[in-house]
Amino acid sequence: MRLLDKKTRNSLLFKLAHQIRLRESEILEANALDMKNAKDYPKALQDRLLLNESRIEAMAQAVEEIAQQEEVIGVIEKKFTRSDGLEVQRVRVPLGVILMIFESRPNVVIDAAALALKSSNCMILKGGKEAQHSNEVLGRIIHEAIGGELPKECIQVLPSTERSHVEELLSLNEYIDVVVPRGGEQLIKYVYENAKMPVIAHYKGLCHLFIDKSADKDEAINIILNAKTQRPGVCNAVETLLLHQDIVESLGVEIVKALENKKTRVKVDSLFNSLASTNYELASDEDWHTEYLDNIISVKVVSDVDEALEHIETHGSHHTEGIVSKDSENIKKFILCTDSSCVVVNASTRFNDGGELGLGAELGISTSKIGVYGPMGAEQMTTCRYLVIGKGHVRESK
Amino acid sequence: MRLLDKKTRNSLLFKLAHQIRLRESEILEANALDMKNAKDYPKALQDRLLLNESRIEAMAQAVEEIAQQEEVIGVIEKKFTRSDGLEVQRVRVPLGVILMIFESRPNVVIDAAALALKSSNCMILKGGKEAQHSNEVLGRIIHEAIGGELPKECIQVLPSTERSHVEELLSLNEYIDVVVPRGGEQLIKYVYENAKMPVIAHYKGLCHLFIDKSADKDEAINIILNAKTQRPGVCNAVETLLLHQDIVESLGVEIVKALENKKTRVKVDSLFNSLASTNYELASDEDWHTEYLDNIISVKVVSDVDEALEHIETHGSHHTEGIVSKDSENIKKFILCTDSSCVVVNASTRFNDGGELGLGAELGISTSKIGVYGPMGAEQMTTCRYLVIGKGHVRESK
Repeated sequence: MRLLDKKTRNSLLFKLAHQIRLRESEILEANALDMKNAKDYPKALQDRLLLNESRIEAMAQAVEEIAQQEEVIGVIEKKFTRSDGLEVQRVRVPLGVILMIFESRPNVVIDAAALALKSSNCMILKGGKEAQHSNEVLGRIIHEAIGGELPKECIQVLPSTERSHVEELLSLNEYIDVVVPRGGEQLIKYVYENAKMPVIAHYKGLCHLFIDKSADKDEAINIILNAKTQRPGVCNAVETLLLHQDIVESLGVEIVKALENKKTRVKVDSLFNSLASTNYELASDEDWHTEYLDNIISVKVVSDVDEALEHIETHGSHHTEGIVSKDSENIKKFILCTDSSCVVVNASTRFNDGGELGLGAELGISTSKIGVYGPMGAEQMTTCRYLVIGKGHVRESK
Repeated sequence: MRLLDKKTRNSLLFKLAHQIRLRESEILEANALDMKNAKDYPKALQDRLLLNESRIEAMAQAVEEIAQQEEVIGVIEKKFTRSDGLEVQRVRVPLGVILMIFESRPNVVIDAAALALKSSNCMILKGGKEAQHSNEVLGRIIHEAIGGELPKECIQVLPSTERSHVEELLSLNEYIDVVVPRGGEQLIKYVYENAKMPVIAHYKGLCHLFIDKSADKDEAINIILNAKTQRPGVCNAVETLLLHQDIVESLGVEIVKALENKKTRVKVDSLFNSLASTNYELASDEDWHTEYLDNIISVKVVSDVDEALEHIETHGSHHTEGIVSKDSENIKKFILCTDSSCVVVNASTRFNDGGELGLGAELGISTSKIGVYGPMGAEQMTTCRYLVIGKGHVRESK
């Protein structure tokens, strides 16, 4: 895998995209089998499982986009020559073997395989039983695309089996460098507790938006509506709105009405009701800790940016925080003092996404700071190490 | 900590260096107490514990060097503006709170505190009982240096206590972002097994040097002597020499004699003895897995670079591997196929060290690929995250 040059790896990616399009009907057939078995599953799960013509085309396009991205392997990040002539380089290299454990979405198989090819990593893919037929045919397509150049073992799609096999995989820290779980909170918790190798994952996305008193009114309304209602079930949607106390009466009431018009259940703190002379449902302490992943939002009134930052520090999940403000001092402070994978200024939190931030496909969004923080694309599947080139150099005694 | 600008952080570092020099006698006094208590300890431990005038001056100089290094926080690593005008930046930020658990060397207190100041991280330092008086006075010096600008809690030197307190610290994953253990294998194993937060550490340094048949003879001898004998007890010293079969009779025998002249015990494989018609002590299977940290080396004969790479893959510890060769194809293959934090070409493995590679002081050398791979300086105590700046931008439905 490491000996394959950039050109060959990219040509394998184009071959893979071609194969995906070519074998559309085979993919649809296998997916239909999975969908039949899933007919009693929740609608949201069925939707994640479903492949159709446009989703298959999107898979192929994602692979082509990854092929066209800049090379990430072998990039020299730093370079200098010491006064004694010793050359020192800091070079980007693959992580090695990545295990990905995921649920539902079969497109993850293709995204992960393509990112692995781009970054010269070996990939072990362990999907859920619900997508077994779809994953299996996609695995075969990958093997046929890479078969001429690479052994099949470089990208393995394991058959769907019980959790005991996952447990065994998670113990193989001698062979697997990192595990990336993608799915529900339970899966991620299980992986964190059992993995003997490092885990890159996000627990939850309890994202905040702070609307400062200097915020542009229309911008603020557009942004909160987008951040909460465009797709409420995703991790970068806002769960708690922090509102400056001076604008509760005016903008605050308008925002709540706009959210309610979008069928969002709004829970406020008592200060909101008293300042705005309203009688909305009250948020409980539990609400500030809750990732709704649904058409629900909590609203808290704060006296200034410091109180907003304190609330985020206590309740945030290091995912995404946004500020709507015209006050450059407050914006600066908000950026410096939020400890999250992405800070958004005068825009929707929904932008914390590999596709939106120019990474193409992503393995996931990491909320752990070690290794990757934020969306995990091909570059984030690498590490940097030193290359030292001498002409017989030895180290002097000190 | 995050609000402190570069200039203030660097001025605190110069203040710290000044304080260290000013209070030399106080440091020496405290260290003498530790040395007195350690008089029955092994010599190597006593040496690590000892502070004297020149070591105190070296501590002060390390702090000044760190102050003079380039800024690592707030550096924009990537930047682009989308066609819709949304600005996207990838910005370097601190990790947050770092816990360092270490043994013996009191200078770690100063190095770690200085690197933390440079990288805007909070640092919790937990040293060993053997250095308690030295660590305590160094902790006080740090607090006096930073006191005007920062609360003491930013850099904490905890009193030396029993392991149960360490266990509690390792459970505080809500407050501590990463733990860096530095010390013996037992300490590191304990931390890996008990920490609830990510661990950055190196297990062991089982480093290899491969001498190819095209190697320059004098270079090869100089390099192996330096890599094994300059300081045999450190992690970047070589433990196993891999020797091309065509040069066993000539260069191989000469190398063994040179090593023996330096009081190094040499263990060879049977192929060496038969090719060179010698009768040296034989290495057992156990030897290939052993980090001697002593004046001992194992020598294995290989048929080519591929066999050398296979041996390294099986027995290496991802620390440092070196090649001595004039064959550019073999060098290229060796670089690509070794999976270690540092690859050294025609130079000593002893160069894998923060000071030698331009990092100044280091927290340690990491052999885990996630987060940091190799020496951990100020830049490696950071992570990158996204900053998105809009003018009311919202995400469009797809």
